[in-house]
Amino acid sequence: MEKILLAHGGGGQKTSELIQKKIHKYFNDPILSRMDDSAVLDKWVFTTDSFVVNPLFFPGGDIGELAVSGTVNDISVMGARPLYMSVGFIIEEGFDADVLEKILDSMKKAADKSGVRIVTGDTKVVERGKCDNIYINTSGIGEIVFSPPPSVEQIKPGDVVLINGPIGLHQIAVLTARDEFGLKTEVYSDVAPLWPLIKQFQGLDIKFMRDPTRGGIAQVLSEITINRDFGIQIHEEALPVTPEVAGVCEILGFDVLHLANEGKVIIIAAEKDAQKLLEIMDTHPLGKGARIIGKVTEKNQGLVFLKTTAQSERIIMPPTGELVPRIC
Amino acid sequence: MEKILLAHGGGGQKTSELIQKKIHKYFNDPILSRMDDSAVLDKWVFTTDSFVVNPLFFPGGDIGELAVSGTVNDISVMGARPLYMSVGFIIEEGFDADVLEKILDSMKKAADKSGVRIVTGDTKVVERGKCDNIYINTSGIGEIVFSPPPSVEQIKPGDVVLINGPIGLHQIAVLTARDEFGLKTEVYSDVAPLWPLIKQFQGLDIKFMRDPTRGGIAQVLSEITINRDFGIQIHEEALPVTPEVAGVCEILGFDVLHLANEGKVIIIAAEKDAQKLLEIMDTHPLGKGARIIGKVTEKNQGLVFLKTTAQSERIIMPPTGELVPRIC
Repeated sequence: MEKILLAHGGGGQKTSELIQKKIHKYFNDPILSRMDDSAVLDKWVFTTDSFVVNPLFFPGGDIGELAVSGTVNDISVMGARPLYMSVGFIIEEGFDADVLEKILDSMKKAADKSGVRIVTGDTKVVERGKCDNIYINTSGIGEIVFSPPPSVEQIKPGDVVLINGPIGLHQIAVLTARDEFGLKTEVYSDVAPLWPLIKQFQGLDIKFMRDPTRGGIAQVLSEITINRDFGIQIHEEALPVTPEVAGVCEILGFDVLHLANEGKVIIIAAEKDAQKLLEIMDTHPLGKGARIIGKVTEKNQGLVFLKTTAQSERIIMPPTGELVPRIC
Repeated sequence: MEKILLAHGGGGQKTSELIQKKIHKYFNDPILSRMDDSAVLDKWVFTTDSFVVNPLFFPGGDIGELAVSGTVNDISVMGARPLYMSVGFIIEEGFDADVLEKILDSMKKAADKSGVRIVTGDTKVVERGKCDNIYINTSGIGEIVFSPPPSVEQIKPGDVVLINGPIGLHQIAVLTARDEFGLKTEVYSDVAPLWPLIKQFQGLDIKFMRDPTRGGIAQVLSEITINRDFGIQIHEEALPVTPEVAGVCEILGFDVLHLANEGKVIIIAAEKDAQKLLEIMDTHPLGKGARIIGKVTEKNQGLVFLKTTAQSERIIMPPTGELVPRIC
């Protein structure tokens, strides 16, 4: 690794390589090394994310909603209530102040929806051509309210794997907005702050939650399964995929499991609470189309398997290189 | 304000304008509106800063040391011990991985010096030409240990204003590294995490602290004096300025009070503790050249005055536009 490549930021294997071989060589705090999306500090969680999406506005959302939702979701999947958020803007000289206001308005709305308070910030302006319009970093603090807090250590064979609705929407919406591959779709991003949904899971036997953003479901499930004494089996026919997303994947050869989502949460829960979870999600706007998509198995330890509609099995690998175009 | 200008990121009046007229229109949390460099959350402080310095390496430091020190210092001046830090990288495609390692190494060293733990992070890679090598955001959490916590409300006429050493070094070092104005100097940036020094002030009657970065001393003192029932008088002859920095200011017409520092703290303290503070600083590597530079006055309420070496007085205004070249 002599030069940083786009794939190093793709959220897949190259990103893990960069983090593990370079970054963790210097930053080796035991909390950081857990590789959760948020750091767990006693009863608090702390997380950060930078948003560099292009275009800034896409069907169903914009960079502002994304920047707040991304950090709210990273906190929420830790079983924590989002409390405080910082916002760091890097703005390109000449950026339109009215567009900035639209983004600020989206951020405020997303923050209000999730109850998070924006309490500190920073604004830098860089010369024209030194940034792609605007980049936004958000960092957030949440208070763990789920008891016990969800964590990968709690996952056991027999648990079920759920998702709160159709997958791949964000990635396809952004690619459409970019007019790449001449794509014309009616797909809208699923970007949303998930705390209003996730908070309703309190009291149920939730083992683990994670939002499948960059790298998609394949990345999340591979990460939590590797070196563990369980496997995960996903049923292809159970995956909630809209016909339009399925069509794009077929035409362009994308694996829907690699596509980024921004309003989805993978939930691993005790089987006894699966129906309850489906009922909660079914009555919530953020949970329409929720499904049980798989289960935690004793066999195939350390691996994620997809049982295809043709009843064959294939191993799901984390995305490597740039199998799907970078959108963030 | 139709377009965002470089001056909107300069830390002076235009930045305040952007924040107050645009950002605070949407983000109006009472904690944010206090406009401290860090948010105070009960006994915690929370702060964020993005670092976009060019060049990445300059005499006396680099972007890595800067990114950790900046956030450590924002926490420290609140009378808080830096505990946890997040790091968000935005890296340009093609960036040299060895250079990244140098930066990581600097960050680790600065974090170790200040006792802060890097516990969470994020890495994005953007296309070539969409970023200036690397941008770093750091956010931090600290625990307030000074009692009472320093805050502008505690400042009273009769208090003294101190600084821990020579001013303007960071700005001139970076400008030198850029080879702007054909500058050849031996000036080294003062960049440093200040907690090891500041923590020694505990127990003394510290009213207020702030690190004079973008916008310099003029910005900090103007901000805290405006609309208050006190004035501040600074003695020009007491300002610690090295001959080399003074020379550059004279030649290029910079006001040394507008120059950015990255290892300086302005301290406002009860007069009775001023000598004690000077003694502490004098025996610490980060406090060499510390001075009393002025006092809080009953007269000239809301204003900052400079008593010049010629014994005349002039009002110090916050920097407007780009009086000194942007370096961050």
